[in-house]
Amino acid sequence: MRELLVIGVGAGDPDQVTIQAVKAMNRADTFFVIGKGSEKQDLVDLRTGILEEHVTGEYRVVEITDPPRDRTPSDYEGVVDDWHDRRASIFEEEFAAEAGVGAILVWGDPSLYDSTLRIVERVLARGNVTFDYTVIPGVTSVQSLAAQHRIVLNRIGESIHITTGRKLAEGLPDGIDNAVVMLDAHCTFTEVAGDDVEIWWGAYLGTPDEVLIAGNLREVEDDIVRVRAELREKHGWIMDTYLVRR
Amino acid sequence: MRELLVIGVGAGDPDQVTIQAVKAMNRADTFFVIGKGSEKQDLVDLRTGILEEHVTGEYRVVEITDPPRDRTPSDYEGVVDDWHDRRASIFEEEFAAEAGVGAILVWGDPSLYDSTLRIVERVLARGNVTFDYTVIPGVTSVQSLAAQHRIVLNRIGESIHITTGRKLAEGLPDGIDNAVVMLDAHCTFTEVAGDDVEIWWGAYLGTPDEVLIAGNLREVEDDIVRVRAELREKHGWIMDTYLVRR
Ligand SMILES: C[S@@+](CC[C@H](N)C(=O)[O-])C[C@H]1O[C@@H](n2cnc3c(N)ncnc32)[C@H](O)[C@@H]1O
Ligand SMILES: C[S@@+](CC[C@H](N)C(=O)[O-])C[C@H]1O[C@@H](n2cnc3c(N)ncnc32)[C@H](O)[C@@H]1O
Repeated sequence: MRELLVIGVGAGDPDQVTIQAVKAMNRADTFFVIGKGSEKQDLVDLRTGILEEHVTGEYRVVEITDPPRDRTPSDYEGVVDDWHDRRASIFEEEFAAEAGVGAILVWGDPSLYDSTLRIVERVLARGNVTFDYTVIPGVTSVQSLAAQHRIVLNRIGESIHITTGRKLAEGLPDGIDNAVVMLDAHCTFTEVAGDDVEIWWGAYLGTPDEVLIAGNLREVEDDIVRVRAELREKHGWIMDTYLVRR
Repeated sequence: MRELLVIGVGAGDPDQVTIQAVKAMNRADTFFVIGKGSEKQDLVDLRTGILEEHVTGEYRVVEITDPPRDRTPSDYEGVVDDWHDRRASIFEEEFAAEAGVGAILVWGDPSLYDSTLRIVERVLARGNVTFDYTVIPGVTSVQSLAAQHRIVLNRIGESIHITTGRKLAEGLPDGIDNAVVMLDAHCTFTEVAGDDVEIWWGAYLGTPDEVLIAGNLREVEDDIVRVRAELREKHGWIMDTYLVRR
């Protein structure tokens, strides 16, 4: 493979792709698609739609199937490391089979809670294949959340904290009371204490199924929990993000 | 004014504009440009270039000049508040004079250290004009920094902290040792202690003048300080962002 393009394509709206991303897609001969097996058809369709809409020439799509993963291991880090290694070797094989320009489309932006760049680094570190690679930034789901609620992430002169549901459950660091939360399967916002907390929540952002809820956390938390469960049931999957602020 | 569009246009590369932003720009009758007076011609040119490249029909450009601001006030918050109010009243007047669709192009993304949405909220809160408004997200300079260095902002399972030079000078919150720093005019990274700190620095990201420096903080800090001073001297202005990580 001569070159690899890792391309952020926005977090839901096919129009949220940049001109730079469109140009990059049109340079690619092969798109590597990471099939999670469990990945929901809607997301696969969205990605296919982006290619169909924006790529004018011929291209190949190669599906890379993730190796199975033990989700409840005792030796968590060891198992994850081993899984990443098996994953890298599958990528290595596919990259080696490509002579031209390869591309991977990444949901949102590649720098935000995404493993693609780590896989690529791991493949390169193994030393069996070499190639140039370029990263094209994208609009993140965090930017999309803020835009749909028309909010600024930082309060004046303050910092911005982006974290996961798991970290939020451990409690926010001292002095931080304004945080964007991603990857939360457990409605961890219900564990944020206080009557003076606001939340801006969004699901399926940028897609036709988008739902937004905002307000005082104590007043809207039950609504969000209920709506989230209903939507998850209806679609078979859900992606949601929120900002909580004291 | 019927509608206002606040459009993120990426942080330097004109190709980093999204298709959604291009469509929005083409719906606008009037672009309000916030002339900071002090704003550097390069940035104004970049914005003009984006319009020329992507807007096909007719449009008007209205320059809104910021009221002068006392930069070293004793009553900091009071002075800033008063300045924002004078600013809002200037915007209100221009918005009232527009019958169609107005637009404001915002550097990077409107949700990240940008005052446009606060001005718009303030204009609406004054109650003298009303209009619909929509925010179009953009690629941030943070995403651009990460893409150019091909790094992931979060370490596995960890959070992401985005802060300002001023806040960094006060010290990072306990438990946070991975931070993106913006709005730093004083090379505050030199104050981050320790021999085990890495930095990824970028200036004029996405523009032809882009400069990247990365490495162990202690080894490269003097370089960055020197290069930053030289570039600032040469261009008359500088915009830089960095990630520091222990
Ligand atoms: C593995 S992370 C990937 C984030 C992605 N790289 C980005 O830039 O947005 C997946 C998480 O992103 C958030 N997310 C991504 N797309 C979303 C969408 N369209 N609506 C709401 N949340 C979304 C959710 O919190 C989800 O758990
Ligand atoms: C007022 S903030 C606006 C940020 C913008 N809304 C965004 O999304 O990137 C300006 C700061 O952003 C960073 N910045 C913006 N554009 C940049 C660029 N092209 N290269 C490096 N840093 C940039 C710098 O830290 C600068 O001090």
